[in-house]
Amino acid sequence: MILGIDPGSITTGFGLITEEKGEMRCVEYGSWGATSKTIFTERLLFIGLGLQEIFLKYKIRAAVVEKTFFAKNVDSVTKLSHARGVCIYEAARARVPIFEYSPTEVKRNVVGYGRAGKDQVQLVIGQLLKLPTDVMTKYDMSDALALAIYHCRVAGTKQKIKEREILL
Amino acid sequence: MILGIDPGSITTGFGLITEEKGEMRCVEYGSWGATSKTIFTERLLFIGLGLQEIFLKYKIRAAVVEKTFFAKNVDSVTKLSHARGVCIYEAARARVPIFEYSPTEVKRNVVGYGRAGKDQVQLVIGQLLKLPTDVMTKYDMSDALALAIYHCRVAGTKQKIKEREILL
Repeated sequence: MILGIDPGSITTGFGLITEEKGEMRCVEYGSWGATSKTIFTERLLFIGLGLQEIFLKYKIRAAVVEKTFFAKNVDSVTKLSHARGVCIYEAARARVPIFEYSPTEVKRNVVGYGRAGKDQVQLVIGQLLKLPTDVMTKYDMSDALALAIYHCRVAGTKQKIKEREILL
Repeated sequence: MILGIDPGSITTGFGLITEEKGEMRCVEYGSWGATSKTIFTERLLFIGLGLQEIFLKYKIRAAVVEKTFFAKNVDSVTKLSHARGVCIYEAARARVPIFEYSPTEVKRNVVGYGRAGKDQVQLVIGQLLKLPTDVMTKYDMSDALALAIYHCRVAGTKQKIKEREILL
């Protein structure tokens, strides 16, 4: 099973997929919600405890997060990195290897266009995993599923995988 | 007991102090080490598990971290924020309120000069807590202790404290 995680400073989406006989299937997806009024400390707690539950519930082979964007403004990078740190930490605590890919390479592979919009990603993910698109109310879930799908596809070449593990 | 934490992308220092009859005493201090060759995921694990142990071992009233610098380059802010996220998360899991102060206000109060160097901070902390300075081999420990001392001093005015809790 492969877990995609899309950390955000407000909500963090996740998507869990499995591959059986060459076909990918969605096991669970969701988002740890918060509003902009939820205090920051509590938001980090939601994400971490949510992930902890997922890691306990399923036997996960790999966790995948988006590479950090350096183009965004420093304030959002800072907040996002706090959330991302908690995600990587929970994966490490669960002894699950964690990988990172840029959104561009994921979209290029999954949607066929590196600069695809979030609505396009959602549409393609829905078709690929046979999910009713109206169920995925938030983009962070489809982005998380896209990461998991991409990892599942490239995971065949083990050498490549080893290189991508976060060693920063 | 008040725990000061100085998160860093390589090592993270901590310092635990207590106040008895108006006198501050150092209970424990140290640093979760890593080298620049330790993989990033593992560094986050060291910090988080180290903090978890401290929170289990002692009854801590407040945890204190440095405010994030926005002046540093984006890459170091990113790495530092991952580590800082893990610290805040572990404090939240332990239900310990967490506070943040700028290094300038801490140094102005503790050393008497807001732009004091790390060696000056170490010297003053050593004198205040009656510690042999050569024991504190790393600056992140003295910086952590300075945060704890500052919080201990301002904690008298409860209103002020409430305001400073991380609500970002």
